[in-house]
Amino acid sequence: MRYINELHFDEEDIEYLRSKGLFEEEFLDYLRNFKFTGDMWAIPEGTVVFPGEPLITVRAPAIEAQFIETYILMSLNHQSLIATKASRMTRAAKGRAISEFGSRRAQGADAAILGARAAYIGGCAATACTITDEAYGVPATGTMAHSWIQMFDDEYTAFKTYCEIYPNNATLLVDTYNVLESGIPNAIRAFREVLVPRGITKCGIRIDSGDITYLTKKARAMLDEAGFPQCKIVISNSLDEYIIRELIRQGAEIDMFGIGERLITAKSDPVFGAVYKVCAIEKDGEIVPKIKISENVGKITTPHFKKVYRLRGRDTGKAEADLLCVYDETVDDSKPIEIFDPEYTWKRKTLKDFIATELLVPIFKDGKQVYKLPELADIRQHCADEIAGMWDEVRRFTNPHNYYVDLSEKLWQVKHDLIRKARGSK
Amino acid sequence: MRYINELHFDEEDIEYLRSKGLFEEEFLDYLRNFKFTGDMWAIPEGTVVFPGEPLITVRAPAIEAQFIETYILMSLNHQSLIATKASRMTRAAKGRAISEFGSRRAQGADAAILGARAAYIGGCAATACTITDEAYGVPATGTMAHSWIQMFDDEYTAFKTYCEIYPNNATLLVDTYNVLESGIPNAIRAFREVLVPRGITKCGIRIDSGDITYLTKKARAMLDEAGFPQCKIVISNSLDEYIIRELIRQGAEIDMFGIGERLITAKSDPVFGAVYKVCAIEKDGEIVPKIKISENVGKITTPHFKKVYRLRGRDTGKAEADLLCVYDETVDDSKPIEIFDPEYTWKRKTLKDFIATELLVPIFKDGKQVYKLPELADIRQHCADEIAGMWDEVRRFTNPHNYYVDLSEKLWQVKHDLIRKARGSK
Repeated sequence: MRYINELHFDEEDIEYLRSKGLFEEEFLDYLRNFKFTGDMWAIPEGTVVFPGEPLITVRAPAIEAQFIETYILMSLNHQSLIATKASRMTRAAKGRAISEFGSRRAQGADAAILGARAAYIGGCAATACTITDEAYGVPATGTMAHSWIQMFDDEYTAFKTYCEIYPNNATLLVDTYNVLESGIPNAIRAFREVLVPRGITKCGIRIDSGDITYLTKKARAMLDEAGFPQCKIVISNSLDEYIIRELIRQGAEIDMFGIGERLITAKSDPVFGAVYKVCAIEKDGEIVPKIKISENVGKITTPHFKKVYRLRGRDTGKAEADLLCVYDETVDDSKPIEIFDPEYTWKRKTLKDFIATELLVPIFKDGKQVYKLPELADIRQHCADEIAGMWDEVRRFTNPHNYYVDLSEKLWQVKHDLIRKARGSK
Repeated sequence: MRYINELHFDEEDIEYLRSKGLFEEEFLDYLRNFKFTGDMWAIPEGTVVFPGEPLITVRAPAIEAQFIETYILMSLNHQSLIATKASRMTRAAKGRAISEFGSRRAQGADAAILGARAAYIGGCAATACTITDEAYGVPATGTMAHSWIQMFDDEYTAFKTYCEIYPNNATLLVDTYNVLESGIPNAIRAFREVLVPRGITKCGIRIDSGDITYLTKKARAMLDEAGFPQCKIVISNSLDEYIIRELIRQGAEIDMFGIGERLITAKSDPVFGAVYKVCAIEKDGEIVPKIKISENVGKITTPHFKKVYRLRGRDTGKAEADLLCVYDETVDDSKPIEIFDPEYTWKRKTLKDFIATELLVPIFKDGKQVYKLPELADIRQHCADEIAGMWDEVRRFTNPHNYYVDLSEKLWQVKHDLIRKARGSK
């Protein structure tokens, strides 16, 4: 929204474009007064979405719709990617908090700052990127760095000094020299000498290398035995949802995760492939659906100015299917509805007792912003509710059920008429 | 350099930090007047570097060195990553130009803009990100979008209109409906009717989907037969260095590549793992080397305030090894030198007739910038020269020779004394 509200071309931009020798003065004049005047709908942040759905619909003069294409697509792709990855990691962590630690490995400053915001929406509890706290209110946290310890003559003095400065926030990094023989004993000694006399029981250690399952089990036993059962064990070091799940399965004693590069770049699949396509044009006041055909079937678009309905079971509250309709259709959820697979059309299913909700909401109307961004905490909660509203089978990391994204009879017909026409007419 | 020159904390930042209730007023006052006052050395952009080398050395009061850590690391990691990926793709393309097309899939605006700059340094010829041209002078190019074609009633009219508007830059996207039956015939017709009468022979087509080898061979034959042997064939669609190499091996007829997501995110490995570690502290005017030990051997740092020499054969000009030394050592290249593997120290080799060049150059001195950034074209040329100065065996994509990154006897001794001390002393 901020991008569209603020988008303009200043004199420097226009001078640059003129220097290319490609553009007419009339066009450059147009840019000088450019303002987005169109309408926009979007599925609110934090909502679970599926392939093949319109996430944003822009209705505007072609030139305006094109100018905003790249930024919209980039923002949507990037932030959806990181929120999705964070959601997967959060679910793998089974209630243990995850702190986003990845700025130094992010692909640029926006990737770090907006990535941390997206990670929070997806379920992370905090970030080590302080700017994201200042700009968006994502809680900033952090633990000590190896450099802190290295700047002292010995590990114990480094720990003790840290506890004295941050007695209420003492999470000590115990793997600079040797976790079990040096780090944990020194941490226990610092806790005893600085925190215990002040009556503080909140404390923590962080392990950033080595065999995590082995070390955390040993560390837990040592801390418990020393009288610090409340000491939290924080783990970092190239984690992702699969490693988190495996560590927990192995019985590693972990209270919190710090996750860097594999979250902030979505390393396992760093591309979210949303596209921005012409679905319809307006001609003499009429909406004419348009399609893009491709040899790659996955690249064929679903034409038309569309609505998206999510159909949820009235009793379970769980999402059963999404239905794409033509803009002038309405789903009546007081009656059963038959949905069908758009590819294998003989696969049919009748839904009864469901609630239909439209997912796309108005964001801009005639160039004016008509949507108020919810508080970040509410977006995060909405995301959690959305995830809870999906069946387990759909939430699986590997081989999830294919969630139904179906087309109404009318939309299906329009699409197939256009495909036939395009293939036939050359 | 710009970041360090401009880094400051404004009143809003200080108010935000105060609101955390964590910081003393004295510290906040310090921030108000913060300025980097230290020294910095770096290996110039475009230089080939190897794991285990100091790419940047910062010598400054600890607090200043820490403040700039995250941004430096992020910039270095991100831009080195993309330049490296671009270099690999460029080499795979064997002289065919690559245009960077990835903004819409970039992880944020900086990733798009600075990524396109890095891709150019790595060997790309151009970018579709116009802002990178305006800001950094990377040549901006582009071809038509599918939307252009969809906004017309038929493909031919779309092509003809485009040729009329951009007669000198007519690269037509031919896969909206059907490449061989519709796209190419319509493109040929538009070239004939608009370009030929004007005496223009420069033209192109772009294919963004389908079986590239098959389609480009057919397309080439059709274009040649129609009298357009000079028509360039541009290919896009999820390419990387391996696919490029395979397409060329198969005899695909390609003149130019447009590469998006797999370049701008370095999809095959989107993390460049440089770290920022304390290597030495200054105590009573003396430089004291520091190490970080780890159970993960790869995470053990090489201590000390260091120099990096590149040793090149005097006759071949090829790089043979890099040598890390303590800051007060000098390599004399008028005499033979014995280098050795820092892990398997019995692996030794004597180099004769070599030229030793220091790689780290001064960037800041006492907080003042003392380095002038070369012109972008010169950085790109430097990168090309650097790549040319590496043996083929080192440039291989898979299983390259391990390039030697060795330590001087003195540095090796310091490192191993510190390891022993750290492991022994607990």
